[in-house]
Amino acid sequence: MIGVFDSGIGGLTVARALMDCLPGYDIVYFGDTARTPYGSKSPGTVINYSLEDSDFLLKKGAKIIVMACNTASSLATQHVQAKFDVPIFEVITPAVEMAVNCSSTSAIGVIGTRATINSGVYERLIKEKMPEARVFSAACPLLVPLVEEGWMNRPETRMIVKKYLHPLKVRKIQSLILGCTHYPILKPIIARKIGKRVNIIDSSLAVSEKVKDYLGRHPGLEKDLDKNGVFRLFVSDITAQFEKTARHILRKNIVLERDRIKD
Amino acid sequence: MIGVFDSGIGGLTVARALMDCLPGYDIVYFGDTARTPYGSKSPGTVINYSLEDSDFLLKKGAKIIVMACNTASSLATQHVQAKFDVPIFEVITPAVEMAVNCSSTSAIGVIGTRATINSGVYERLIKEKMPEARVFSAACPLLVPLVEEGWMNRPETRMIVKKYLHPLKVRKIQSLILGCTHYPILKPIIARKIGKRVNIIDSSLAVSEKVKDYLGRHPGLEKDLDKNGVFRLFVSDITAQFEKTARHILRKNIVLERDRIKD
Repeated sequence: MIGVFDSGIGGLTVARALMDCLPGYDIVYFGDTARTPYGSKSPGTVINYSLEDSDFLLKKGAKIIVMACNTASSLATQHVQAKFDVPIFEVITPAVEMAVNCSSTSAIGVIGTRATINSGVYERLIKEKMPEARVFSAACPLLVPLVEEGWMNRPETRMIVKKYLHPLKVRKIQSLILGCTHYPILKPIIARKIGKRVNIIDSSLAVSEKVKDYLGRHPGLEKDLDKNGVFRLFVSDITAQFEKTARHILRKNIVLERDRIKD
Repeated sequence: MIGVFDSGIGGLTVARALMDCLPGYDIVYFGDTARTPYGSKSPGTVINYSLEDSDFLLKKGAKIIVMACNTASSLATQHVQAKFDVPIFEVITPAVEMAVNCSSTSAIGVIGTRATINSGVYERLIKEKMPEARVFSAACPLLVPLVEEGWMNRPETRMIVKKYLHPLKVRKIQSLILGCTHYPILKPIIARKIGKRVNIIDSSLAVSEKVKDYLGRHPGLEKDLDKNGVFRLFVSDITAQFEKTARHILRKNIVLERDRIKD
């Protein structure tokens, strides 16, 4: 199976993109809803949680792991790669490559959680690939709770998005990386507020293409993956609100299974 | 020591009120910042976390425990009282008593997290003490992230508070219980939006009076409590933002100590 984990439900945008990009492949998802969110927590805590989440997926039969969470990808990728012996994908690099490829000028914007933005990982990776780049980033901590509250298209949400994006807009960025799995859900508002000349880079699409490409180059592993269209969705805590948000993202009825992270 | 725990930093409003009400008494606080918030999580998860938090405080030398978290108080009080053999205080009953005492008409409002409001505990306790009461409640899940973001007096915060309070305002409530430890920080905005005829019930003050009264009636325990003005602040995770919010609430410089919940 393809394993996907996130701090919560937002990473289902990545699972959804994987289903569209690799139809029929079995997927096992883990959302750490009992400890969500990760974006306001410290690097050490995010690393520990990411190691536990990966271990959980491997025990459920994952043969590759996609870290759908931007905060985990920013802070824990090397630790997870060092500990586990399967291919580990993160959502940062694919989005950076896509942004660099579609930007002819050098001004690139990034939005994310406080932990992701503070890590500086986007800026570092963009400059590795495009040394002349000017990177403008903004932490947008209220967008996750707004999405989880279901306020996708309220005036308050539009005001807050506008306020967060203003410092990027005045810099005339050409691409904007959505550096958090929840943000694709707000893409219509974000696109309107940042202006239609800006390319919106959705990391859920970028990482799915990356996985597809990798499997094309590794037929041994590809053959090993089951393709029965199974999708198992584990969470560390279940509430009605999590189920509602999950249905909204996946656009279908789903069954959440609760499981403990540690035995 | 007097032990106080909360899902995060918000419960420092209760620690602050205890310091004012019982000056000089030693206090040990635990904020479960590695798993915050509790208000969006399920009853089973909140109960487990509350038992672990209480156990942590007892190991640090607490002789009584104040559950500063409304969500924990709503869902876990009986479980914590059944497991541990020290006096356990919760923040719901003191606020309910204060609201009932100062309401001559029967319309009482309650605001809190989704988990607290869904538990129905305020409504049940108010009706036990005042059977003719009409209780109007509203879950306000965005207020905690707004406070933690430091947006105490932004136009967006005022709009959101107004929207949440509107259904209570039209019911002409006479008292409004702030059923979450973060809300006293928004008291000025809440008071303005709900109207000046409404009594605002702050559970941090109500529970502190309750503890003081209890100690007056139990001189044996009271004598056993150290009174060196020590305040120890433990958290399960440290970030710059937690420290900033803690300083804002306590109105002084503090040192956060990180410790693990389980050995």
